Amino acid sequence: MAEDTKDTLTSNQMWGGRFASGPAAIMEEINASIDFDKKLYAQDIRGSIAHATMLAHQGIIAAEDKDKIVHGLNTILSEIESGRFEFSRRLEDIHMNVEARLADLIGPAAGRLHTARSRNDQVALDFRLWVKEELQKTEIALTSLINAFLDRAEEHAETVMPGFTHLQTAQPVTFGHHCMAYVEMFGRDRQRVRHAIEHLDESPIGAAALAGTGYNIDRHMTAKALGFREPTRNSIDTVSDRDFALEFLAMASIAATHLSRLAEEIVIWSTPQFGFVRLSDAFSTGSSIMPQKKNPDAAELVRAKTGRINGSLVALLTVMKGLPLAYSKDMQEDKEQVFDAAESLELALAAMTGMVRDMTVRTDRMKAAAGAGYSTATDLADWLVREAGLPFREAHHVTGRAVALAEGKGCDLAELSLGELQAINPAITAGVFDVLTVEASVASRKSYGGTAPSEVRTQIAWWRQRN
Amino acid sequence: MAEDTKDTLTSNQMWGGRFASGPAAIMEEINASIDFDKKLYAQDIRGSIAHATMLAHQGIIAAEDKDKIVHGLNTILSEIESGRFEFSRRLEDIHMNVEARLADLIGPAAGRLHTARSRNDQVALDFRLWVKEELQKTEIALTSLINAFLDRAEEHAETVMPGFTHLQTAQPVTFGHHCMAYVEMFGRDRQRVRHAIEHLDESPIGAAALAGTGYNIDRHMTAKALGFREPTRNSIDTVSDRDFALEFLAMASIAATHLSRLAEEIVIWSTPQFGFVRLSDAFSTGSSIMPQKKNPDAAELVRAKTGRINGSLVALLTVMKGLPLAYSKDMQEDKEQVFDAAESLELALAAMTGMVRDMTVRTDRMKAAAGAGYSTATDLADWLVREAGLPFREAHHVTGRAVALAEGKGCDLAELSLGELQAINPAITAGVFDVLTVEASVASRKSYGGTAPSEVRTQIAWWRQRN
Amino acid sequence: MAEDTKDTLTSNQMWGGRFASGPAAIMEEINASIDFDKKLYAQDIRGSIAHATMLAHQGIIAAEDKDKIVHGLNTILSEIESGRFEFSRRLEDIHMNVEARLADLIGPAAGRLHTARSRNDQVALDFRLWVKEELQKTEIALTSLINAFLDRAEEHAETVMPGFTHLQTAQPVTFGHHCMAYVEMFGRDRQRVRHAIEHLDESPIGAAALAGTGYNIDRHMTAKALGFREPTRNSIDTVSDRDFALEFLAMASIAATHLSRLAEEIVIWSTPQFGFVRLSDAFSTGSSIMPQKKNPDAAELVRAKTGRINGSLVALLTVMKGLPLAYSKDMQEDKEQVFDAAESLELALAAMTGMVRDMTVRTDRMKAAAGAGYSTATDLADWLVREAGLPFREAHHVTGRAVALAEGKGCDLAELSLGELQAINPAITAGVFDVLTVEASVASRKSYGGTAPSEVRTQIAWWRQRN
Amino acid sequence: MAEDTKDTLTSNQMWGGRFASGPAAIMEEINASIDFDKKLYAQDIRGSIAHATMLAHQGIIAAEDKDKIVHGLNTILSEIESGRFEFSRRLEDIHMNVEARLADLIGPAAGRLHTARSRNDQVALDFRLWVKEELQKTEIALTSLINAFLDRAEEHAETVMPGFTHLQTAQPVTFGHHCMAYVEMFGRDRQRVRHAIEHLDESPIGAAALAGTGYNIDRHMTAKALGFREPTRNSIDTVSDRDFALEFLAMASIAATHLSRLAEEIVIWSTPQFGFVRLSDAFSTGSSIMPQKKNPDAAELVRAKTGRINGSLVALLTVMKGLPLAYSKDMQEDKEQVFDAAESLELALAAMTGMVRDMTVRTDRMKAAAGAGYSTATDLADWLVREAGLPFREAHHVTGRAVALAEGKGCDLAELSLGELQAINPAITAGVFDVLTVEASVASRKSYGGTAPSEVRTQIAWWRQRN
Repeated sequence: MAEDTKDTLTSNQMWGGRFASGPAAIMEEINASIDFDKKLYAQDIRGSIAHATMLAHQGIIAAEDKDKIVHGLNTILSEIESGRFEFSRRLEDIHMNVEARLADLIGPAAGRLHTARSRNDQVALDFRLWVKEELQKTEIALTSLINAFLDRAEEHAETVMPGFTHLQTAQPVTFGHHCMAYVEMFGRDRQRVRHAIEHLDESPIGAAALAGTGYNIDRHMTAKALGFREPTRNSIDTVSDRDFALEFLAMASIAATHLSRLAEEIVIWSTPQFGFVRLSDAFSTGSSIMPQKKNPDAAELVRAKTGRINGSLVALLTVMKGLPLAYSKDMQEDKEQVFDAAESLELALAAMTGMVRDMTVRTDRMKAAAGAGYSTATDLADWLVREAGLPFREAHHVTGRAVALAEGKGCDLAELSLGELQAINPAITAGVFDVLTVEASVASRKSYGGTAPSEVRTQIAWWRQRN
Repeated sequence: MAEDTKDTLTSNQMWGGRFASGPAAIMEEINASIDFDKKLYAQDIRGSIAHATMLAHQGIIAAEDKDKIVHGLNTILSEIESGRFEFSRRLEDIHMNVEARLADLIGPAAGRLHTARSRNDQVALDFRLWVKEELQKTEIALTSLINAFLDRAEEHAETVMPGFTHLQTAQPVTFGHHCMAYVEMFGRDRQRVRHAIEHLDESPIGAAALAGTGYNIDRHMTAKALGFREPTRNSIDTVSDRDFALEFLAMASIAATHLSRLAEEIVIWSTPQFGFVRLSDAFSTGSSIMPQKKNPDAAELVRAKTGRINGSLVALLTVMKGLPLAYSKDMQEDKEQVFDAAESLELALAAMTGMVRDMTVRTDRMKAAAGAGYSTATDLADWLVREAGLPFREAHHVTGRAVALAEGKGCDLAELSLGELQAINPAITAGVFDVLTVEASVASRKSYGGTAPSEVRTQIAWWRQRN
Repeated sequence: MAEDTKDTLTSNQMWGGRFASGPAAIMEEINASIDFDKKLYAQDIRGSIAHATMLAHQGIIAAEDKDKIVHGLNTILSEIESGRFEFSRRLEDIHMNVEARLADLIGPAAGRLHTARSRNDQVALDFRLWVKEELQKTEIALTSLINAFLDRAEEHAETVMPGFTHLQTAQPVTFGHHCMAYVEMFGRDRQRVRHAIEHLDESPIGAAALAGTGYNIDRHMTAKALGFREPTRNSIDTVSDRDFALEFLAMASIAATHLSRLAEEIVIWSTPQFGFVRLSDAFSTGSSIMPQKKNPDAAELVRAKTGRINGSLVALLTVMKGLPLAYSKDMQEDKEQVFDAAESLELALAAMTGMVRDMTVRTDRMKAAAGAGYSTATDLADWLVREAGLPFREAHHVTGRAVALAEGKGCDLAELSLGELQAINPAITAGVFDVLTVEASVASRKSYGGTAPSEVRTQIAWWRQRN
Repeated sequence: MAEDTKDTLTSNQMWGGRFASGPAAIMEEINASIDFDKKLYAQDIRGSIAHATMLAHQGIIAAEDKDKIVHGLNTILSEIESGRFEFSRRLEDIHMNVEARLADLIGPAAGRLHTARSRNDQVALDFRLWVKEELQKTEIALTSLINAFLDRAEEHAETVMPGFTHLQTAQPVTFGHHCMAYVEMFGRDRQRVRHAIEHLDESPIGAAALAGTGYNIDRHMTAKALGFREPTRNSIDTVSDRDFALEFLAMASIAATHLSRLAEEIVIWSTPQFGFVRLSDAFSTGSSIMPQKKNPDAAELVRAKTGRINGSLVALLTVMKGLPLAYSKDMQEDKEQVFDAAESLELALAAMTGMVRDMTVRTDRMKAAAGAGYSTATDLADWLVREAGLPFREAHHVTGRAVALAEGKGCDLAELSLGELQAINPAITAGVFDVLTVEASVASRKSYGGTAPSEVRTQIAWWRQRN
């Protein structure tokens, strides 16, 4: 077979700078994953203990070997957790680092551990266990944030603020109602987290390299020992599947989108122009010479994390695009994206829970803004339809004239006299004043899910029961 | 109030080219959504009928007005479906187009329909209904594709092919087993679709502009009439939520990733070098002068749709980032992304179902490739551990020597004589030949989820029960 | 060769819904590009005329055939532009539609046109020409927007407004200076546009299918005729390259990011709380009953286009990832992304140019906000360092005490008496009042690129020279 | 002013897990950037030295203070480079860490350094300097890769391989020509790098917080000292601009796309089925028992980096979307994305340069594949048009019959006899055999940029002159 190769330049010419030592240095740098996958040490050891225990139970390895293995792995676990373990880049990844140390500790029996498994199903197991635990932590963090909002909503069930569309005042709402909107969002996120756990709750171990194994293993036993609902059903899919990572990232991106909306509101509400809330010192930074200035740093950083998490989602979707089955090394890029997004989401949820709990709500500013801009004009129009029987279009016309009159006088709608209103349309009665104040306006919107304080309390109770 | 403005240049100077007519032309072009949201006509009319019926039931509008409205809306429905309806860009969107036509048809009663609702909850309803129906269609399309794979898997439960890792031959597997890997992937997609439906199954109508309404409406009645589980619980969230669209796109991106992997395999398997499958004429294009050439166009296009769907996901995540509550006009960008991704996913699923069903599987090429490259070397090593009691490391060493011998002789492992093998290690017996052929290799991997034909049939039966 | 196939179900069972007619219908739908690539008709015809002219010049086709071809193509051009051309989906794309019609019009000579070219280099040419022209249009649109800002900057070189960091008032700046920040941004975009044109300015035609051709063609002649700097240098790269499309999208994403920042500011500035600008009616929508309400729809839509354009960039990057050379059908997904992003960018630039020109700047609101919040506190501190020789830290301390005093009295820094200031630090002289007003503050910042009106005018002049 | 706050739960109840210590711990974790921005230490110190020197030159600070500052900064530089510097998270970022240490070392004079600047322009400077240097490194790395390809192209200017479209054999090309396609791609990347440097080559320092400064600074002097073409022109833009980071990421994404295509080809070419190349041991991993197996790990990892880099681009585009001017804390998310993408791109370029240089090209396998599949059928058709004067369509028909005859006989086109060919069409002469071999086919394609060895050598020479 005629082959030819090319290898003439010296290392120095070819590999400038940091890669001066040539191919080997580059390969180690691009290939080694231990710098990040050591995060999986606990899952790796837990999985190996379950696997060894099953092998012994099935008579595939001897009980005494199993005992040595389990003891050795527990030793390694405590070495790592106490910071005494030396991770080696030469050993590439967490699996090899643990395996090599096990051989040091217990000798040849260590070799038995790798019976009927491969690094392909091992990494699938470790990573899936990690993601499952992270999802469980996310569920708790979401519940904390929901609880923070439920508390603020209860406290402010009657606090009136402007309801915005297009960031323009539209109708008065209660701050409690606004808080409950976020409860709904984070409640949906939590539901997605729960379903994501349900989707990934299958044990990969025993899929081996990709084809399963001829050993008489019991995958239901390892699945049970590791807390999975059941083993996966197809060994090729098992080692090539990263849906659980993609689904984690998709969930995180949507949750981060919610967080970014909340962060944006906090940033806007903290301006001197709005002044609806004041962040606690813990979550803002000040200026030594401008004591009134408080930069909402934490909210801005939470808002920015959305970009970071979306980026991770795009990264992994792109990595997985068009990969033939089963395992390809490309998939090694899965972990850093998920670790980073998980870290960002955890931090952002904690920071937001803190901000929501700590922030001062400036009810006077909210109320003053709620009343400005004739925000009850639609209440007047609705009253004209409902109580005075005017057709919709006519009611709008009358309302427009009333607003114009008030604007001319520089007063609110509620400050017009009954006479002035009747001059515009004689069907108007004193009862109209019941809807022209912002308090009356919000109290009237009692439709299911509406902004009336009574409705807000009903929603709070509904959620309290579910937390 | 000192204000100043600037308006000196003539239209011609300021607005070159296509926008010569100035601001009005630009605004109509950027603002009007009728070109795409007319797709929601059926949902819009259905929602309006449910709303009008509820209003009449609650005594908010008169029964005769309701009857006129319902009749008018049904007329409009048939006008649209028969192509007789004139959509107008001046009327901006589907809601205004329908409403204006209703006024033409039934006069002032048309105005009653808008009681206790707004365009904000109306568009939320229309779009949510559309997405729900699309998810239901996706569920069916995924089931069709799963069935196509189940059929091919059954047919090829014993067809041996190379199992790849890193696109290098690793171990023999069955083509049926490979097909079942895709059944698992698309089965997970289907599960995500079902949960996405569960997550969005709440009726938005009655949230009104953002605050709910003072009218005595019955949102449970409209929810039931429109097939929703229940009404939404918070009116602010209702008009600002697009989670259902984001979740659709996230699901579609993951499903598209699966499709891209399958497409990639089909492209590679269709090369003369692999030759594992031959696409039907329907899904490939040929050359008039190179009759043997068949371009896998359909597979390539499916692979490319992944990019398109990921792009739509990124688009909507970016649009929603940092939007203050409640409705902002930015959200008008939600529909085209979802419509486009839905269209792409539908097409890709249909094309793949067709390709999978129609393609010719070249079992001879698969089998020949499966046997090449000493793909049963791990079977030999496993046999040495299991049957001859060798330690793992020793077994690997022996196997390496056997492969080297076979390579030297230019033959397969199974073609070595017993004597030759025993010369390498005397513990080897004739029983070893039971694992050295690719058929024996796959038959032996009977672990749960493994590639043995018996296991593949078990998996097929499991899925048949669930379809 | 043992092959087997599967084709048992009836069409109805297999292809539900819209694809009832089976594979052919799916394939036509996924494969045909005429619905969008007809946009390239002018480029296609122009390219063909240049190609035919060169073929005749080189003696590859006869002059009379060339004349027929050119005449036929011009006929088709006018048929298309007058709306008389019937596009056919069966003919797949714009190239085949034109070619088929040419054969109708001029008979066998039409077949000569395809000599020494293929659809691969033809589509590369058409699309590249289109992108180049779109870049040229973008350059003009950016210049219009820059001019709009230059005009407003000139008008408001002395208008004081708050300069924000973290959306908190930091220091006073001029509105002219703020406008000039956008001039810098869009100026950079324009520079990127110009370089993008430079990068793509090579003619693909003559690369043929992928290997070049044996005909004695003159690629420099066609390059020149079509306005390109030179022909491409490698025929394989030529048919597999879509960098020009990716670079267009990357440029558009960055420009859209700038537009989104401007849009965000307009939305925030249009709130009643800020009230810095008032959009013209042309670019906002109002409410029939709340006359003071103006929704900044156009700004919101521009902001949302960022998502759309980013999505297109991600889409094409994902499509191109991992494609082997040379042409793959995946690349057909390039055009819709670029067309859509170009349309969005064009609209967004035009809308923004309009908004910037038309909007009313409320100088009184800006000035009032600029003075609030002790925004000149850093000016005081700087004065203490510069004029009174205090160390930085001491100066900050003194400033903090002055602000606290003013806050306690409910007045501005400039409203404190000299005595009050000297009581805090005796080194303070009457000269300090020169820096405590917002006008004095901005006037003092004369460093290169600073906010002083004189500096702003220098910047304006610099840019005027370059437009 | 009525305000209320909420702070009832104990820390333990509110802040579970890692954030048990409450808000302060969360804020430090989300806010501190020192863990990553310490990478900017050299740029930070360099910038400070230039700033101090200019301040002294302008008489703003005393010469002796400048000397102390410069000496102190140089001390810190050597402390950091020798690993003796203690970075502190409490001091948040690199700027504060350096500043605090400077105060330790030189006392009050350290405070003078911050005159006429702020962290906003300081971080803009540091980061811009870093990106500029990284772009310069990228230019060199691209040149190395281009050189590797030029060498292989020269070596293989005559090596025939199949030219693929749709991954199907289309026409024979030379491997040298294929290599030169990558030279074009990476050459375009290099051009983009050069223009990116040109776009960012303006010095931010002196913009101060956002408004410029009243001190009489000389920004042209610092710009020159730091190697920038000129200072930026607008201080607000200067502190809010991150175009240079976005443009770096966009460039990196396109370059990574090219690398992913090359990686994909290497993966496919390394399969036993293709066998076109064999990677060196340095860039692949083997199996202890399957000696023939070589996993192309490095190529797969390079392919995966595309996802990572695209993700970073999306992340920063999303972060920057809709940020009001000037500085917002969100922008702190800029650095990690750029650092990570730069690291990935550097590694991927180095790894690819190594793979291209080291890989064994299996010319026999390439040639055998090039001849299969009647890849010279178009040459026959072209010959018939060109030499025998047949119309295009007739030529295709004749070619189809010749291919069918060869297929029936199981031979190549070149193996048909003249008689057999003339039986199909009598106009065929012996001259036809000059185009039927793959060597003749490639040699004939001498159009500019074509695959003929002579053309490939022309291209190589063109590029050699420019490197």
